[in-house]
Amino acid sequence: MPGVPPTRFTYLGPEGTFSEQALRRIPAAKRAELRPARSVPDALDAVRDADADAALVPLENSVEGAVGVTLDQLAEGDPLVITREVVLPVTFVLATRVGRGLDEIRTVASHPHATAQCRDWLHKNLPQAAIVDVLSTAAAAAAVAKGEHDAAICAPIAVERHRLNPVAEDIGDHPDAVTRFVLVSRVGAPPAPTSNDVTSIVVYIAHDRVGSLLGVLTELAVRGINLTRIESRPVNNRLGQYCFFLDCTGHVADARMGEALMGLRRTSAAVRFLGSYPRASPEKITAPPGTADADFSDAVAWLSRLRHGGVE
Amino acid sequence: MPGVPPTRFTYLGPEGTFSEQALRRIPAAKRAELRPARSVPDALDAVRDADADAALVPLENSVEGAVGVTLDQLAEGDPLVITREVVLPVTFVLATRVGRGLDEIRTVASHPHATAQCRDWLHKNLPQAAIVDVLSTAAAAAAVAKGEHDAAICAPIAVERHRLNPVAEDIGDHPDAVTRFVLVSRVGAPPAPTSNDVTSIVVYIAHDRVGSLLGVLTELAVRGINLTRIESRPVNNRLGQYCFFLDCTGHVADARMGEALMGLRRTSAAVRFLGSYPRASPEKITAPPGTADADFSDAVAWLSRLRHGGVE
Amino acid sequence: MPGVPPTRFTYLGPEGTFSEQALRRIPAAKRAELRPARSVPDALDAVRDADADAALVPLENSVEGAVGVTLDQLAEGDPLVITREVVLPVTFVLATRVGRGLDEIRTVASHPHATAQCRDWLHKNLPQAAIVDVLSTAAAAAAVAKGEHDAAICAPIAVERHRLNPVAEDIGDHPDAVTRFVLVSRVGAPPAPTSNDVTSIVVYIAHDRVGSLLGVLTELAVRGINLTRIESRPVNNRLGQYCFFLDCTGHVADARMGEALMGLRRTSAAVRFLGSYPRASPEKITAPPGTADADFSDAVAWLSRLRHGGVE
Amino acid sequence: MPGVPPTRFTYLGPEGTFSEQALRRIPAAKRAELRPARSVPDALDAVRDADADAALVPLENSVEGAVGVTLDQLAEGDPLVITREVVLPVTFVLATRVGRGLDEIRTVASHPHATAQCRDWLHKNLPQAAIVDVLSTAAAAAAVAKGEHDAAICAPIAVERHRLNPVAEDIGDHPDAVTRFVLVSRVGAPPAPTSNDVTSIVVYIAHDRVGSLLGVLTELAVRGINLTRIESRPVNNRLGQYCFFLDCTGHVADARMGEALMGLRRTSAAVRFLGSYPRASPEKITAPPGTADADFSDAVAWLSRLRHGGVE
Repeated sequence: MPGVPPTRFTYLGPEGTFSEQALRRIPAAKRAELRPARSVPDALDAVRDADADAALVPLENSVEGAVGVTLDQLAEGDPLVITREVVLPVTFVLATRVGRGLDEIRTVASHPHATAQCRDWLHKNLPQAAIVDVLSTAAAAAAVAKGEHDAAICAPIAVERHRLNPVAEDIGDHPDAVTRFVLVSRVGAPPAPTSNDVTSIVVYIAHDRVGSLLGVLTELAVRGINLTRIESRPVNNRLGQYCFFLDCTGHVADARMGEALMGLRRTSAAVRFLGSYPRASPEKITAPPGTADADFSDAVAWLSRLRHGGVE
Repeated sequence: MPGVPPTRFTYLGPEGTFSEQALRRIPAAKRAELRPARSVPDALDAVRDADADAALVPLENSVEGAVGVTLDQLAEGDPLVITREVVLPVTFVLATRVGRGLDEIRTVASHPHATAQCRDWLHKNLPQAAIVDVLSTAAAAAAVAKGEHDAAICAPIAVERHRLNPVAEDIGDHPDAVTRFVLVSRVGAPPAPTSNDVTSIVVYIAHDRVGSLLGVLTELAVRGINLTRIESRPVNNRLGQYCFFLDCTGHVADARMGEALMGLRRTSAAVRFLGSYPRASPEKITAPPGTADADFSDAVAWLSRLRHGGVE
Repeated sequence: MPGVPPTRFTYLGPEGTFSEQALRRIPAAKRAELRPARSVPDALDAVRDADADAALVPLENSVEGAVGVTLDQLAEGDPLVITREVVLPVTFVLATRVGRGLDEIRTVASHPHATAQCRDWLHKNLPQAAIVDVLSTAAAAAAVAKGEHDAAICAPIAVERHRLNPVAEDIGDHPDAVTRFVLVSRVGAPPAPTSNDVTSIVVYIAHDRVGSLLGVLTELAVRGINLTRIESRPVNNRLGQYCFFLDCTGHVADARMGEALMGLRRTSAAVRFLGSYPRASPEKITAPPGTADADFSDAVAWLSRLRHGGVE
Repeated sequence: MPGVPPTRFTYLGPEGTFSEQALRRIPAAKRAELRPARSVPDALDAVRDADADAALVPLENSVEGAVGVTLDQLAEGDPLVITREVVLPVTFVLATRVGRGLDEIRTVASHPHATAQCRDWLHKNLPQAAIVDVLSTAAAAAAVAKGEHDAAICAPIAVERHRLNPVAEDIGDHPDAVTRFVLVSRVGAPPAPTSNDVTSIVVYIAHDRVGSLLGVLTELAVRGINLTRIESRPVNNRLGQYCFFLDCTGHVADARMGEALMGLRRTSAAVRFLGSYPRASPEKITAPPGTADADFSDAVAWLSRLRHGGVE
């Protein structure tokens, strides 16, 4: 389509990391402009400043990025919203420039978090190798491509990009490990409900006392909203005052989610909406009886009859 | 006003009991037609059958009526609503036909519940007197007026009506005792909110399990609704299945009460609305922060912005 | 056994009421001395004063007694404990002195609560009869035996005692109606656990605020204790301050009940133990997982290891 | 003391990072042997294998380490316990080899998380400088000492160690930022209570349903235990099943904490105790009324009386 500029995505760089691999899972990324960012704050500010349309950043269990930074950045500054999540299996590959046996490998380069996640495999298969820490798994692959080290532990995308030779695949100690990334945009109407959605929020509590968090969770549970993630963070990076990052089952368009969000709005010190978006996992969590939109409609009609003296 | 028939009230009879005394506290009763009923079911059925416009019946702590019957009658059959409560101090009077000293009294007639509530006084002041059980405090006064017994324990209204001589007043062992009566009408628009109202409901729970009642109370507490009375009753008069009679602070027109009632409607087996009406006691119970109508309006507006992609 | 005096039971009189019928269901009553009391307070004071060993009084849904009085009496004064419950089907009998047809009956005597519970039957079968209120169903039977009225509505035991002729049986409008009586003794070791027990308590709450009762129920629910009855009562007979009568599933000897009671002792204004005793209904309510005595023992051992630095 | 070997501490290396600085805050570290570890798993395994007596690792808000790794390592493998926490203000220093003005600085080296936390300062004060990512703040300081870069952003300890020249201090965008480190040992008796302690635990929940986490928090709140941190983690690094890392106020030796832990032991799928240790912050969180050790003792004595038929 001539004249229509491509969507501009940014992501936590450098090129060839798990972040880029996650971004490439999004169909729209195929024909889009992709730019790596130096850091999560840089990526999100590019969106805030309209230098990018959306940013893909790690939110949970990242190999290379600190997810705390992502949370703090979403909680502060101009509001942004999550419009999509990508859950990526963390598949570590041991790659070399040319085919060679394991016993010929003397140095293995990678990001320290990656080598930490392959410790058992390295212990068993490369006990003799020296580990070299580099700044990212992509940097490790690049260095191996240049002949600086014998092997790299990196993402599959980096193997491809640097035309390396995969010596061993899936060498992580936790074969089921995944990282969760989110695509973040400027504020706008949320994606349509899919019946299997996540709503992310940050809730601030006024006082640090027994039961404050219990109160927040009760607001959700009473409306049949489940949690799939919770993380407290000190407010303003200080220990002592807290906010809570919550991933809830459901969509802001659902009646039950709407009532729960309004309950938090009324009773917490503050609540920030971080977006409603399709859940990556197909395992749908069922809401309890009495919390479907139809149940809410019926209750609204009943209340109206009560208030106007009608028969129940 | 010629042509306008007077309001027809009925009450738990006979004439001259605490029920009639409570009814006469209602200004509208002054120019109305008052008819005693044989029993609470008779009184309520008179309203259901449009033979009366309203019935005054005891709901809590009655001297002569069984309040369980009132509860069961409100929970079953055609719906009725409470439009008013009357809290009456239970002031027992010892009355005789002609003035006489305590030492001359040989027999004291009253309803057994009344003599039970004056036990300590009788023990101390009339140890020699024989207690005669009769069907009501009013019947006791009538019998004394006819010379059948030396003295009656009765309501002040009966002293007046039978022109008896009050020998000792306020002889109940619990000087602060009160009975709570309610005025019951056919279903119609509730009285306007006064900022100090009660809402009475019956809630049925589906399963008798740990936490069912907790769930009901949580629906209320989350919306800042307080309870001033709770009573479980076996459903269909059988032990084992339960419903709960609840008196809640607030009015059905309040946003918080509306949301709480809708929550019960959605999640309980059934809920019946028994009316919103002014609380007799002037001690107002304050709702917690975040539950005023304005808080609900603000939350509704905020949710609407979230759903349509507006700025928070 | 010569020299051993019989157990002395008292009950809410007069003779021939449902209370006596309930008492006679207790095997020990067969060879005991039974004495009717004028009122529930009289019956309980007879136990307190050691004039009786135990008293049988109505606790829930009574035909003739006010159960509120029973509750207040148990909550105040010297402590007493419930050692047994008797759940009696409320079987109303229409009885006459000599056999006669329904159409020959002109007057029916009974306690007003009894006639209220047979209203539908009377309406349909004896529309022409005049209802005569008397002080108890037993008094009605006695009066019919003397020829004062044509028929009585009374308990089966009164038919037998006054050698009346049962014209119609089971004439109550609620065929499943029951009354629950309890046997009350001076304080002593509770009956041994049977695995299907009830524990009755009164809990006083310090402040009348949103969530006070919720707090009490949470103390119970967290330990897996279910409720089968709850009733709030104004403290000192005044509306405004409250205590709660609770019937809980389980025995004071159970670990979970012990912890729950201790929790109430610590956090409520006051709690009075009213006894642990076998549940009359065979339907056993199962405690949730993790709340058996063995679970508590395991947890105690684990905590001890933690505290002393042992391996988990 | 000749013959007594020094305590052997390990910490997340390399030398000169915030971790070493935190460790040096511990008095016992003064005369101890300190060894840097390549990674958090290496540090903790050194303790497990008895190659070190204790390890200092970041738990919350770390500049250089991934705290998720620490959590996972504590939750899995042979149990370890936290015996101390160190909360370190994150004071970033801009340091050069020789004194020079800001306008002469062309390159600034640091760990990417450190430069991210000084973004605003860099933007304003060194807009012209190129940022060079290196593996740690300590590595940045070392490289500057060797003349490889103009300036480093690093910890104060690294300035001292590499005899650098501090050009600007406290340049972080969040002046109150702190990192929380914990000292981890093999299982043993916990440090004595100080009346201001933290207890860290991991709780696994059996089912991912509405209210599971609420149940866990209720077990704590009912016993008056407050939370100061909560973080959910997918079990086995997979999204979908969850465990919760909780920091609770109080000590395992406290009666209320003991009962709460036992409650979690009984009702959750599993719970692992991670230690009780003094809170670094002097702000003490007060437990609610009724939860002191004396309240528990009183309740135990009362229950014993109830069970044995004694007077309350």
